Amino acid sequence: MGCPQAGPDTVAAMPETPMSFHMTPEELRRWGHEVVDWVADYLATIEQHPVVPGVEPGEVRSWLPPAPPEKPEPFGDVIADLDRVVIPGTTHWQHPGFHAFFPANTSGPGILADIVSSGLGTQGMLWQTGPALTEVETHVLDWVVDLLGLPERFRSTGDGGGVIQDSASSATLCALLAARERAMARGATLDQLVVYASAHAHSSLEKGARVAGLRPDQLRLVDVDDDFALRPEALAGAVAADQAAGRVPCLVMATIGTTSSLAVDPVAEVAPIAEDAGMWLHVDGAMAGSAAVCPEHRDQQAGLERADSYVFNPHKWLFTTFDCSCFFVADRAPLIQALSILPEYLRNAASESGAVIDYRDWQVPLGRRFRALKLWFVLRWYGAEGLRHHVREHVRLAQELAARIEADPRLELAAPARLNLVCFRHVDGDGPTEALHHALNATGRVYLTHTRLADRYVVRASIGAWTTEQRHVDALWRLVDELA
Amino acid sequence: MGCPQAGPDTVAAMPETPMSFHMTPEELRRWGHEVVDWVADYLATIEQHPVVPGVEPGEVRSWLPPAPPEKPEPFGDVIADLDRVVIPGTTHWQHPGFHAFFPANTSGPGILADIVSSGLGTQGMLWQTGPALTEVETHVLDWVVDLLGLPERFRSTGDGGGVIQDSASSATLCALLAARERAMARGATLDQLVVYASAHAHSSLEKGARVAGLRPDQLRLVDVDDDFALRPEALAGAVAADQAAGRVPCLVMATIGTTSSLAVDPVAEVAPIAEDAGMWLHVDGAMAGSAAVCPEHRDQQAGLERADSYVFNPHKWLFTTFDCSCFFVADRAPLIQALSILPEYLRNAASESGAVIDYRDWQVPLGRRFRALKLWFVLRWYGAEGLRHHVREHVRLAQELAARIEADPRLELAAPARLNLVCFRHVDGDGPTEALHHALNATGRVYLTHTRLADRYVVRASIGAWTTEQRHVDALWRLVDELA
Repeated sequence: MGCPQAGPDTVAAMPETPMSFHMTPEELRRWGHEVVDWVADYLATIEQHPVVPGVEPGEVRSWLPPAPPEKPEPFGDVIADLDRVVIPGTTHWQHPGFHAFFPANTSGPGILADIVSSGLGTQGMLWQTGPALTEVETHVLDWVVDLLGLPERFRSTGDGGGVIQDSASSATLCALLAARERAMARGATLDQLVVYASAHAHSSLEKGARVAGLRPDQLRLVDVDDDFALRPEALAGAVAADQAAGRVPCLVMATIGTTSSLAVDPVAEVAPIAEDAGMWLHVDGAMAGSAAVCPEHRDQQAGLERADSYVFNPHKWLFTTFDCSCFFVADRAPLIQALSILPEYLRNAASESGAVIDYRDWQVPLGRRFRALKLWFVLRWYGAEGLRHHVREHVRLAQELAARIEADPRLELAAPARLNLVCFRHVDGDGPTEALHHALNATGRVYLTHTRLADRYVVRASIGAWTTEQRHVDALWRLVDELA
Repeated sequence: MGCPQAGPDTVAAMPETPMSFHMTPEELRRWGHEVVDWVADYLATIEQHPVVPGVEPGEVRSWLPPAPPEKPEPFGDVIADLDRVVIPGTTHWQHPGFHAFFPANTSGPGILADIVSSGLGTQGMLWQTGPALTEVETHVLDWVVDLLGLPERFRSTGDGGGVIQDSASSATLCALLAARERAMARGATLDQLVVYASAHAHSSLEKGARVAGLRPDQLRLVDVDDDFALRPEALAGAVAADQAAGRVPCLVMATIGTTSSLAVDPVAEVAPIAEDAGMWLHVDGAMAGSAAVCPEHRDQQAGLERADSYVFNPHKWLFTTFDCSCFFVADRAPLIQALSILPEYLRNAASESGAVIDYRDWQVPLGRRFRALKLWFVLRWYGAEGLRHHVREHVRLAQELAARIEADPRLELAAPARLNLVCFRHVDGDGPTEALHHALNATGRVYLTHTRLADRYVVRASIGAWTTEQRHVDALWRLVDELA
């Protein structure tokens, strides 16, 4: 097993090869400028493309050679394939007509930060392997506490702190692992644990619970009210029933802005139920959390000061290139306790001093990129002022669209139009609503997705792409008006 | 709750604001060229920096303003802070003197691909939301099967297929979740499951087992032989004992290239033990797997054709910018079964046709970047020929260093020098070895980390940074020679 070792004589006799296939800094400079130009041109002309491409399954693959290249290819051919293969097969998330799901925004400063992150190629599993990576992350997440008016307990300067994860799904899993750790340290068995959320909570909790080893019957999806927000009485009832049966409430997830309708669970009413039951309160503000850059939208986070953890995604609605999900904990000890393992090959003086954060213990993977750069660049490029301006613009545009829909006798809102999301349907029922939905998407100029609310088919218009302006929402309205 | 809705009249009366804080495509072009130049300059002059910076805990934070900016800042100030804040606090993973841990490589083509990925800002949770993202990924991972001579069963054209994850830790967790799913579908309880690996396996299995809800006593770390490879008899004995006690073997992880010493577990001997016990065989080739681009290094993967899953990291030793970990399964059904949840808001015709891959069901997070671009760009820039050349160069340089160490009476190899890793120690014992280690790192010109082998302190020299050339390994040897 392994290579035969060359002795010193053989080594000396081997000719040194001057050959290198690596891209030199000068080549990187040249091709880097070309690729940046390609991206700038793409963003400047993005409206020329249909939002969703017309490709069939397997079509993109059919454009690719069956085997990997034996010899290096000219880089010009690679760039040409961006137009030949990638663009015709891409769903354009940055298109101003992208109103599907939730936005996953990029932005100029986010792109620039990612260039630096990829160029540095530094990996911050430990403070030692990336002091700036680690400390800029901790610091910028403390800035976010200021920026969004978040509870003081989420600052790193106390017992808590923030970390950037790839997605809210991963953050929610980490919250659950910390909650599980805490509950089991108090004597509960895995078998006894129960987690709670509203029936409109994101599916990431169900996935996380499954990952964490809970059975389907250890997850309770609690009833919602007429506005699709969690009913605290229903939660309290479920918790009491579980406790009476000898089960142990472990975690409740309250949502600030559900995926289907941006409904806001009453965190302030959930908190005392969580406290009484000794369970972890995790709050998911993945999408709507960003609205709190505007003081007038902070009412949604009332009660957050009693939460154990919180997640929101700057890569959704704060113009930060995916992936950037901010996860805060009020007490970092159970999180680290749940995720820390220290093999010999990772031991180092800085970690053992206790004076540093090793972010590998705040996430499931070991390795990590310098993702804080993009949040840092975005906050500095826009300033709080710029972020507030664009969030307010999106809200204004969505509310204007909602008003138009409400005023139209053929259409109705399917839920209160909150912030930047408008859920609507045709008054004639599911068939015409679904037909309208498909007709809108078939234009290629917009892309909307659907959900079901109160068991009826509903079209969702999310106004959140950074490229979306007044004229695009006006155009969306004209299409709705024409096709209704 | 929520915003008051503006009626149509109010809307018409609102002045349209022409203000925008977004970076325009022209600004992106201008600053993009500057940032690319900054990266090219950084890489051209990287040797000027000490590999590990001399900062104290908290020092980087002290260079940052306490609160986030209210107003946008000039982007020139942001770039200036790369030199003022980031560089002095960065551990330079791409430095030619970086011999610590394992490499986490970037490269020109990898950086360029990431620019495109960030610029497109497309998110491939579903085929529908990223057909090219999805199909390029599937296709390039089939290419990797050719490139490394991997078993046919890992191709997507049969029952298996590949997916890119952020790290081997996440891939190993997914393997464990699929294995757990399969074992429990056959009637086992979570409580009964046992997972196995050698005592030298990566800590990611222990972390993954904990995440998946296994107790510490459900993980067996099996004895190794004199070369630190798993002893099949020890595994067979542990499995038999567990079965006799009514426990259920769930998964065994064999490692091709352990972290401490690149030891190779005998996959071909582990496979029949796994088969007899009905357990999942996962193979971790995170670092050494890349060596298989060279046919002469494929002996290490003998038996892989009987594995259920395999992971290796092109971001370690295949010049692909972090994060890019390739995870292959022989049968995708249990993986998807373990991770698929389909809420209404993600339903779409393409998924329901069954003709497409939705990669959200192959990973823990929901969202995902277009990471396949970097692997695609790298394979095309280097060609198989270029990758083989550089892997061979690293192996040659490491073996040359090993020969020098072996020939020196003050030093000895602590394990067979396999591929690009040299584990060595001072013949006078742990004290002098540790002193040598610290003296080497104190020069600032190299960064090595340690491990323990056979309970002795060992210095590891990993030769894998893409910038490392003959002259750097010669310089490393001169330092060792001088400081020993």
